[in-house]
Amino acid sequence: MQTIDIEWSQTEQKVAKEAFDKAYEREIKGLMALVQEKAGAIAQLDDMWSLHDFLSAKRHEIDGKYDYRYSFLIFVFARLVKEEWLHINELEGLAQEKLAKIAALSRM
Amino acid sequence: MQTIDIEWSQTEQKVAKEAFDKAYEREIKGLMALVQEKAGAIAQLDDMWSLHDFLSAKRHEIDGKYDYRYSFLIFVFARLVKEEWLHINELEGLAQEKLAKIAALSRM
Repeated sequence: MQTIDIEWSQTEQKVAKEAFDKAYEREIKGLMALVQEKAGAIAQLDDMWSLHDFLSAKRHEIDGKYDYRYSFLIFVFARLVKEEWLHINELEGLAQEKLAKIAALSRM
Repeated sequence: MQTIDIEWSQTEQKVAKEAFDKAYEREIKGLMALVQEKAGAIAQLDDMWSLHDFLSAKRHEIDGKYDYRYSFLIFVFARLVKEEWLHINELEGLAQEKLAKIAALSRM
């Protein structure tokens, strides 16, 4: 993945951390509810192995997605906005340049 | 795994197939109930990944365990009896020699 070397002020770091945690919490909460729903609907063996496949994919996805290194954060936030785990407004407090980059990337 | 080259009469094949299917159904049914119970108890992310690890292990175990090749069946049945998915009485109809082998192996 490409990285962007830019500075993050202390205020921006605080905004970023809060937004990151919020998105993470939302996605995990949604995922847990979905897993419980899928588990509740298990009627045969294939359903159980489908749940296993689903968990394998999600675990891999989540592990890769929530990368809090500052050089990746612009891309991480763009993806979270695109996937609607985060609203761009929740990143208010970041420099305009960063917000513009995130917004542009989130529309790709 | 060691194999045993012995003949299975048509009657024995029928008994074996029924017992095999019965054990499989019991184990799968128990596993599905357990997965639903574990999923229902998910309270945090670690619980979800524990469920994933559990499913990975069980899928591997079940795939390996239920091997219906006649050269393996004595060992398969011994394991199923040992794990209590099958009672030795449910293999009635097999030759005494086979039952003795299964019983002996199941106590190992």
